[in-house]
Amino acid sequence: MEVALDRLLHTQPLDGETARPQRLLDAMRYASLSGGKRLRPVLLMECAELFGRSDEGICQAGAALELIHCYSLVHDDLPAMDDDDLRRGQPTVHKAFDDATGILAGDALLTLAFDVIAEEAVHPDAAIRLGLSRDLSRASGIGGMAGGQMLDLESENRQRTEREIHTLQAMKTGALLRYACRTGAILADAGKLDVERMNRFGETIGLAFQLADDLLDVEASPEQMGKATGKDADAGKATLVGLMGLNQTREELESLLQEANALLAPYGDKAQRLASIAAFIANRDH
Amino acid sequence: MEVALDRLLHTQPLDGETARPQRLLDAMRYASLSGGKRLRPVLLMECAELFGRSDEGICQAGAALELIHCYSLVHDDLPAMDDDDLRRGQPTVHKAFDDATGILAGDALLTLAFDVIAEEAVHPDAAIRLGLSRDLSRASGIGGMAGGQMLDLESENRQRTEREIHTLQAMKTGALLRYACRTGAILADAGKLDVERMNRFGETIGLAFQLADDLLDVEASPEQMGKATGKDADAGKATLVGLMGLNQTREELESLLQEANALLAPYGDKAQRLASIAAFIANRDH
Repeated sequence: MEVALDRLLHTQPLDGETARPQRLLDAMRYASLSGGKRLRPVLLMECAELFGRSDEGICQAGAALELIHCYSLVHDDLPAMDDDDLRRGQPTVHKAFDDATGILAGDALLTLAFDVIAEEAVHPDAAIRLGLSRDLSRASGIGGMAGGQMLDLESENRQRTEREIHTLQAMKTGALLRYACRTGAILADAGKLDVERMNRFGETIGLAFQLADDLLDVEASPEQMGKATGKDADAGKATLVGLMGLNQTREELESLLQEANALLAPYGDKAQRLASIAAFIANRDH
Repeated sequence: MEVALDRLLHTQPLDGETARPQRLLDAMRYASLSGGKRLRPVLLMECAELFGRSDEGICQAGAALELIHCYSLVHDDLPAMDDDDLRRGQPTVHKAFDDATGILAGDALLTLAFDVIAEEAVHPDAAIRLGLSRDLSRASGIGGMAGGQMLDLESENRQRTEREIHTLQAMKTGALLRYACRTGAILADAGKLDVERMNRFGETIGLAFQLADDLLDVEASPEQMGKATGKDADAGKATLVGLMGLNQTREELESLLQEANALLAPYGDKAQRLASIAAFIANRDH
């Protein structure tokens, strides 16, 4: 993944581009090559491998998804948004550069993703690539990730029901995780039922991811996380942990993990790594 | 165009979307339905009509392009960027809403464009739609519009050569105008030479557009423009007017207009409206 991202963020302008300004490129590289769990591309690649495909093109699709994820982190960290100074233990992009460069770097990463997903190596059928490009737009736009961030910002000091929080989280985090799993299956030409199963697997671990995140925000130290913690409570945001309490949240998380494993059961040992990722998501401590 | 944009920015979530948060939708509608010259979609539609196509799908492609343009205005107006309070005589998006909503509305408009350009009505051939989606990414990303805005921000209090300013402007404004003209021709299945000619026409009026803009920034009143003027000089930005003087700039503008007309000559009367647009661009007073 590092290699794929590094290769995409080069100085040489592509056909149809005029030049790639160094400062903007530096900020984009800083935003996307400073570590990170690469959870979304890993999920995409594992789901593709489950149905027999693992090659450069799959890696390319994973990189497109990671560019979207990285753009969202850069914009979410901005002073006007969550106002975070640290990310993965390092200064956030707007701290290392400046706010304007942060905005533009996010914009350009988002834009680049739609170039990358269109590459021929991703899938020989242009109609499939186009469909995935469109799905990516819906998973990350007003009806997905960006909309979820809007709802999250509006949550400060506003009472939310459990159902509303579920919607918010399904959009903010769930949509891209679901996209990752579903897209992996589609790119490996999996059958319709398998694609639907991977879609549900993605949805399930998306919910688990957010519950684990909420638990960590309450329980972990800033050192473990490489970023500030306790921010949700400080901002007066209603979380599921707040509504359900620690014990019920842990139980819910456990039951989501079982559901994820049940979805993987038909694939037996071949789905071992995907099961490990689900367990990692539910039990991670950073 | 208003109808097409209005129809795209609806409350009902699309297939693959979870919900469309009202506040974000309101900001996106405010950003894209508050008037504007609609220059880019008009160019796209006129170029398509020149080669015999005018239908809903063309309008759709024009709307995708306008979404990109509107996103760029919203982000450029942000306090961290050009810090403008007025746009088309009304409060800018971050003034009417807030900075966070401005950032997210821009993100979501940009993202939506890649959904819209993928619609089947745009062109029956998925490979062509995918190609245009990719071109749109390159015209608006690091090697195009976003990169141009980065160079423009870096221009404050820095000496730039005429050549550097040309590059900056070709990226910041030229890339989308060129995309508009080229895409119109492609969508109407024009021949390769005609597509290339429209590409050059777009490039030429892009240069004219920026020269006219620089002249207006020096000569027009804020009332005429519906936004602040004299900002480039105040920010210490080198402009072509600054380097070449008023008279030479006007001459250069006149010669670009002649070049644009020469490119349209082979199409005779059919290109009348495109010629009027070129003249409007060169001589506009707002």
